[in-house]
Amino acid sequence: MNQLLIHPDEIEENTAIITSKAKITHVKKCLKKYSSGSIIKVGILNSAMGNAKVIKADNSQLILELDCKTLPPEPLPLTLVAALPRPKVFKKIIQYSTALGIKKLFFVRTWKVEKSFFQSPELLDQNINNNLMLGLEQSRDTIIPKVQIYKLFKPFVEDILPSISDGSSKITAHPYAQDFSINDKSSNVTLFLGPEGGFTEYEIQMLEKIGFSTYSFTDRILKIETALSYITAKLF
Amino acid sequence: MNQLLIHPDEIEENTAIITSKAKITHVKKCLKKYSSGSIIKVGILNSAMGNAKVIKADNSQLILELDCKTLPPEPLPLTLVAALPRPKVFKKIIQYSTALGIKKLFFVRTWKVEKSFFQSPELLDQNINNNLMLGLEQSRDTIIPKVQIYKLFKPFVEDILPSISDGSSKITAHPYAQDFSINDKSSNVTLFLGPEGGFTEYEIQMLEKIGFSTYSFTDRILKIETALSYITAKLF
Repeated sequence: MNQLLIHPDEIEENTAIITSKAKITHVKKCLKKYSSGSIIKVGILNSAMGNAKVIKADNSQLILELDCKTLPPEPLPLTLVAALPRPKVFKKIIQYSTALGIKKLFFVRTWKVEKSFFQSPELLDQNINNNLMLGLEQSRDTIIPKVQIYKLFKPFVEDILPSISDGSSKITAHPYAQDFSINDKSSNVTLFLGPEGGFTEYEIQMLEKIGFSTYSFTDRILKIETALSYITAKLF
Repeated sequence: MNQLLIHPDEIEENTAIITSKAKITHVKKCLKKYSSGSIIKVGILNSAMGNAKVIKADNSQLILELDCKTLPPEPLPLTLVAALPRPKVFKKIIQYSTALGIKKLFFVRTWKVEKSFFQSPELLDQNINNNLMLGLEQSRDTIIPKVQIYKLFKPFVEDILPSISDGSSKITAHPYAQDFSINDKSSNVTLFLGPEGGFTEYEIQMLEKIGFSTYSFTDRILKIETALSYITAKLF
């Protein structure tokens, strides 16, 4: 991790008192700096980032003197909508999207998404939150993204997606479509990524009906986790 | 997987005879088409791609009638040089690079690479080869990339890298550097990706001495597997 995330509840004035065993172990292992006077990089959740000086460090408590004046990096003006991937990949997508600076994440069932994916414990709030934190720690950011999950494609596309994507450039990424070009770049994008097996023709048409344009970004079929960062880089 | 890869040794005229248990299981599970008359997507290693009709399919043998006339997609004019990552990440980098169409991969030790990474079984030819195959199957390609691993940074940079990168645009990706802009795009690139902890100042300078320019591609710190596809998309 590239910074320690601190919850506002752990702070009193300029001092952070960390008692979470997980965090203490993390700092010990990852930062390799666990003695008084050490300086570590920190971020306050949904707030500023900066450095912290270790005041006290033992097995039960880590006390830090905070100096946080840097604003977190600008969020990416990208709303990601993705067909719910396999649980292992879902974890990665949460982490990678967060690291890339995406702040709004929607997952939905499409035709080629296995129903069992929705039963995965990875979809529990606590687990999603852990992966959001890993993404923020990785990229040095503090603003927690919002994640929403929908089980039904049709009502999601008809009732929810129009307002989510309102005012943005609407793009469906699909391997067999017109090539995306630099002229299609926009300052604000809603991107819909399909499942491993791709969208059905019906799904593409439903998305086109509400204003989504279908583009291909490469002549290769990429895994969703590779496609996510590849397409994000192409879009901005 | 998006296609079955067939070795030229498995082919006689227009017929492929597959006896590898791993491949047969793979076709059964992944393609969900394992009966006479089914059509599956295939690629011949280092050769053409196309369709195959299942002639015979039982537990010990899969006989296919090949119709392969499509050329594999163009390789990416990118040579990747990366600080050897942790074994788990090394696997991913091999797979993702291959899927992105990179055909020349070099791994080298830099200051912040743990020596133990070089002892990993993931570096054995057989395991590298498996991950190359996964990348080709994913992206529908047939041309096997070349992978080389070097243990010493200095002799690699002084003696090997100049000829590897000759005639290409030479780029070191580093979080704290000038921003990469569209004007820096080139048709042929050698890209050096650093380790998790970054390059040392000395390493950056050694690379600059042989003509590498140091660029930052985002104001966020990305994992190497995210950075790889992000930067590749920015470069071309």
